[in-house]
Amino acid sequence: MMIQSRQESVVRVLYEFPPGVDPKRQGQNLALGQTVGSLVPGMAAQIASYQGTLESSDVLSDGRGQAWVRYPSHNVSGDLGSLLVMILGKYSLAGPAKIRRLELPSDYGARGRWGFDGIARLARVSGRPLFMGIFKPALGLSPDDLARILREVGEAGLDLIKDDEILPDTPASTALSRIRACRPILEEIERTQKRTMLYAVTLSGRADKLLDSARRLREAGANAYLLSPFAYGLSVMEALASHPDTNLPIFAHPAMAGALGGSPDYGFDMSVLLGTLMVHGGADAVLYPTSAGNLPISADTESDIRNTLLHGGLAPVPSAGVHPGALPRFLPDRNTRIILNAGTGIMDHPQGPAAGVKAFHEAWARWQNQESFSPDALPEGPLKAAVLKWGT
Amino acid sequence: MMIQSRQESVVRVLYEFPPGVDPKRQGQNLALGQTVGSLVPGMAAQIASYQGTLESSDVLSDGRGQAWVRYPSHNVSGDLGSLLVMILGKYSLAGPAKIRRLELPSDYGARGRWGFDGIARLARVSGRPLFMGIFKPALGLSPDDLARILREVGEAGLDLIKDDEILPDTPASTALSRIRACRPILEEIERTQKRTMLYAVTLSGRADKLLDSARRLREAGANAYLLSPFAYGLSVMEALASHPDTNLPIFAHPAMAGALGGSPDYGFDMSVLLGTLMVHGGADAVLYPTSAGNLPISADTESDIRNTLLHGGLAPVPSAGVHPGALPRFLPDRNTRIILNAGTGIMDHPQGPAAGVKAFHEAWARWQNQESFSPDALPEGPLKAAVLKWGT
Repeated sequence: MMIQSRQESVVRVLYEFPPGVDPKRQGQNLALGQTVGSLVPGMAAQIASYQGTLESSDVLSDGRGQAWVRYPSHNVSGDLGSLLVMILGKYSLAGPAKIRRLELPSDYGARGRWGFDGIARLARVSGRPLFMGIFKPALGLSPDDLARILREVGEAGLDLIKDDEILPDTPASTALSRIRACRPILEEIERTQKRTMLYAVTLSGRADKLLDSARRLREAGANAYLLSPFAYGLSVMEALASHPDTNLPIFAHPAMAGALGGSPDYGFDMSVLLGTLMVHGGADAVLYPTSAGNLPISADTESDIRNTLLHGGLAPVPSAGVHPGALPRFLPDRNTRIILNAGTGIMDHPQGPAAGVKAFHEAWARWQNQESFSPDALPEGPLKAAVLKWGT
Repeated sequence: MMIQSRQESVVRVLYEFPPGVDPKRQGQNLALGQTVGSLVPGMAAQIASYQGTLESSDVLSDGRGQAWVRYPSHNVSGDLGSLLVMILGKYSLAGPAKIRRLELPSDYGARGRWGFDGIARLARVSGRPLFMGIFKPALGLSPDDLARILREVGEAGLDLIKDDEILPDTPASTALSRIRACRPILEEIERTQKRTMLYAVTLSGRADKLLDSARRLREAGANAYLLSPFAYGLSVMEALASHPDTNLPIFAHPAMAGALGGSPDYGFDMSVLLGTLMVHGGADAVLYPTSAGNLPISADTESDIRNTLLHGGLAPVPSAGVHPGALPRFLPDRNTRIILNAGTGIMDHPQGPAAGVKAFHEAWARWQNQESFSPDALPEGPLKAAVLKWGT
């Protein structure tokens, strides 16, 4: 999982094509068509330095073709928008092609200013995974409901909470009204527990309004953002990650990623969408579905995403299928630089949300001591109730 | 091709699923999962007004399933970002689903301030299609090259010209340097021909920089923008279309649309991407591939896109496969509210770019007089040379 290019001045892309498509020919079409467009007689010297190169091509045993194409990085503008136009752009209309790997110069794009370490430092947690919850139900909660839920899970020791991504600014609930309702509780937790609980609030609206709103939310006490970059634009996340007035951790949500990465033949590998493009797009933490849940994602893909994020210093945030008894599953290689995000896994705990939070802390303590998670071995309490409901 | 909803307060979406997927069940999952998330005991009344509804479901004769789902429009924020999160968002990760039709309240999103009529008025053209060219090669032209090409095609009567979308701000060619090189020629054409030739310049960069740059370009004399909204974000186009300082016609390029619409089972129908979302995203003119070219798009899809744009008052800009002899093909129903965009069809004319432009005007005159386009019937000149090279 390389995310740096061997040469700093090029962009390398691995394309995959369905059986029957000639990868050599398509690789050549990409190298030419996505750069100089066509060979113009008499201008060959003038445009030579812009032309892409087919590095290699291959037909795999299952008949699928692959081609590595190398593009000069001075063809693009240092941002992800012009990068996407170059590496897939109009070619996307020419037939099936899926980008499997993307290697960029290490300083390409926007880099998150926080990453896992910055978030953990803010939350004053070290040496263990962070635990994140989600306000539920997604829509229809009043400011009082939010404050009540926040106090309950905050007192129980939850590190972070987020809006559901489907809660934008609505007439009944603006992000600003949510921050105003929650700020006193966050301050109370800060005062009594000597830690900062983070609340990632959903950003929405057209690009200029979204960025203005992000500034105002920070002024009003927001301490983290939730953005769906595939719905709003990677360019918006890059802006958010770059401006001094929006210097808060950015939690990137994978909404719409399936439209760009679900098909076997079109778009992008999930590890490019939720890994490489996040690392170079300014995200600090990235939510992604896990193979432990009921979404169709393979363990290999999940691992690719996680490793790309870790390598880039970002916080992997496995989501969907996360509940207290499943904690060991998310700590392979004893890596604890991860944020476990549970919606129902906290809010629908049989003994209530506070017990859901406590069950995660209990699971962490048991995991550290290498104790069994089998129901028979568990003492009565939140973790046992969680395991009886959701398993391990 | 309805683009207004029957009821102004709802968003209606037609989803299609591959054979074997139960459209009724998935429609219900969408109606619930993409709105309130889950049914919360004791909060049913509070969240009822946010819940989506499965309107109908059906299994087609080929086994594919369809479901119409209706969402309250107060669940979203009046912008396309929150709309995409609601109608596809996290569900996109749950398995194959393709949005075939999208119906929005008529005032939803951002609406282009120019449309076809505004662009034609600016260009001082009425009663005929507009002719648009593309600077070629895409990369590597110097400011002097641009000025020379622009003068040649401008003097020959070209209405509009655009950058290639793969030419962002690069170290060797910023959009500002291009506008500075071309402005004197545009002013010369204005003075001598009493018309405004439009030059759609490529916008690039992270969202805030892109919007700033668009303002500066307008101050420097730019009179049209080229944006790839699927690479930069629809939210960026909405912002561009809404701000008083960026009040210029927006030409939307379909780069990346294939990643979102190429697959039969994932993402969006091309008529939603390049039609409905453009009408509600603030575009004034939309480039799309034609079935006359070598890109895999059906005549029906082309017609759907064109009709959606026309119905919304936008300028359809058929691209790829456009050359002088093909003009009649793009004027079905004698509709002339269209912009014909030719890259090689002008720049690679056997007698040079000026002849390419003249061939389009000649084709238009013949079409008006209902004269034959067969090579035998054509007088010697630019059109005949074009037809001999590219056919009709």
